Amino acid sequence: MEKIINLLNISEAQQALFCAAAPGIEQVFPARESMRGMCGTVAAEEYASATVILGNAPPSLVRESSELRWLQTSSAGVDAYLVPGLLRENTMLTSAIGAFGQAVSEHMFALLWALLKRLPGYRDQQSDAVWNSLGQVKTLCGAVVLIAGAGDIGSAFGTLCKAVGAHTVGLRRDAQKPADGIDEMHTLSSLDALLPQADVVALFLPHSQETAGLMDERRLRLMKPDAVLLNGGRGSAVDVDALAEVLEQGHLWGAGLDVTAPEPLSAEHPLWRQERALITPHVAGFDHLPATKERVIDIALENLKRYVAGTPLHNRMR
Amino acid sequence: MEKIINLLNISEAQQALFCAAAPGIEQVFPARESMRGMCGTVAAEEYASATVILGNAPPSLVRESSELRWLQTSSAGVDAYLVPGLLRENTMLTSAIGAFGQAVSEHMFALLWALLKRLPGYRDQQSDAVWNSLGQVKTLCGAVVLIAGAGDIGSAFGTLCKAVGAHTVGLRRDAQKPADGIDEMHTLSSLDALLPQADVVALFLPHSQETAGLMDERRLRLMKPDAVLLNGGRGSAVDVDALAEVLEQGHLWGAGLDVTAPEPLSAEHPLWRQERALITPHVAGFDHLPATKERVIDIALENLKRYVAGTPLHNRMR
Repeated sequence: MEKIINLLNISEAQQALFCAAAPGIEQVFPARESMRGMCGTVAAEEYASATVILGNAPPSLVRESSELRWLQTSSAGVDAYLVPGLLRENTMLTSAIGAFGQAVSEHMFALLWALLKRLPGYRDQQSDAVWNSLGQVKTLCGAVVLIAGAGDIGSAFGTLCKAVGAHTVGLRRDAQKPADGIDEMHTLSSLDALLPQADVVALFLPHSQETAGLMDERRLRLMKPDAVLLNGGRGSAVDVDALAEVLEQGHLWGAGLDVTAPEPLSAEHPLWRQERALITPHVAGFDHLPATKERVIDIALENLKRYVAGTPLHNRMR
Repeated sequence: MEKIINLLNISEAQQALFCAAAPGIEQVFPARESMRGMCGTVAAEEYASATVILGNAPPSLVRESSELRWLQTSSAGVDAYLVPGLLRENTMLTSAIGAFGQAVSEHMFALLWALLKRLPGYRDQQSDAVWNSLGQVKTLCGAVVLIAGAGDIGSAFGTLCKAVGAHTVGLRRDAQKPADGIDEMHTLSSLDALLPQADVVALFLPHSQETAGLMDERRLRLMKPDAVLLNGGRGSAVDVDALAEVLEQGHLWGAGLDVTAPEPLSAEHPLWRQERALITPHVAGFDHLPATKERVIDIALENLKRYVAGTPLHNRMR
């Protein structure tokens, strides 16, 4: 017996579309009042008999879902559900990858411009009513932008940078696979050789053994002294202690982080008070840009139709 | 007897080029130590006999230059020298208009993205080590950007906005004259009709009787409740008291100001502490972007050659 828990934050009209996509199958929706952001909540006891979950359910409840056949996340990253033993052996996992390109790339583009024009320092001055030049600024026109993780989000970021005159170099698993917005593609094994040539290094990497701690002190020091580091993927890719140290020593023009490890940093961490670091609280994606939410819903609805029809799902992560 | 005061911040090699452009004419340069930013200073007594000044000399000294035939500014704006009685009747005035398009447009583009993604609020939170979503953000993709003053700077700004998916509407004296980066051109008389349609209103206007106080409370209220106001021209175009009031009341998504009237605002002015206002201290142009300085020098050198040859000067303002 199929049973769907649909946690997506959708309108009543959209609920009707999801019901129509899975006729005759019980579908549990959250109470309207439980809605906050991308997903609502339903009673814990519903999970025991659920065969399908749409949306980012709490991992502890997913673990209790002994009948689960398919989990569709509302996020691009799925690492919270890849913990060994959390999903049953045959449970399918699909992500909302593809929905976040615009939102995340634009957010990181905004952080980059803010750093190039010293806006964090100017904002700090503004709080004290100080009117004082902070000196030379930088441009993206003619800059070399190295994009580690040139999938949906990295490709969208490259497209923005190219549009304002940058040269973009992408790193992805299969360097033969081109992507919009990327002038030249390499594999992650070329990272050390490419770091010293980049004016901007932008990370859009999933969390994995290969990417955790990637930007350690050695690699941060391979970057140009006036380069900008951006992290819009997973916080684990950057050693925040090493980053704080090199910034303190005057290395790098600046760093823009929407993700950190841990999240949040401890209140005493020096990056909070670093003028050349700009930190936002993992808000680049989620549902902060209205268009993103609609794309997540489109992906989930299309996959539900495919699940019911028994055809292969999009965005299979396992 | 011709005598040139050359205040431009140039290298020794560039000094030689300026000397070669005006052979046999005395040319006074500032001492290297007096150099700060775009112009240095020379002794006040040099001004009495100067026939040419290259660079933004103090207006009080220009007033004393009774032999002055030509003043070439290193700025795009020349209003400081248009005070009645300051220049002699036949003194030519040329500006460095055309040198600041990239620098000013990029700076205002950075302010715009920062506001759309709520970076001022996030920066304020960062200072307190706060990790908290501020909610929905906006995009430029599909936005209508109204650009009042579609000359060199406004055109460059329009080009940036179009490159990331905006529709640009320009306002200039001669609406028949197209400009790069502007999808449709109107005259300033269409302002009131166009304000309610714009998602972004960007001002790049010189100071004049026509532009002073242009964005008063009535016109600010004609803007969409969630529109962004930018001022990268002259501060006098925006009534800062009215702006502070409408922002306080929740009108407008935000305001990015690189110029204000007066400059700086009084330390008590509420705009300093407005989360949705982002203020920078008139730094968009000047010489903060290295490419700008070189363009100013190119304009001045070309005009010096023309002056010596007796051919018409570029960028004549009077």
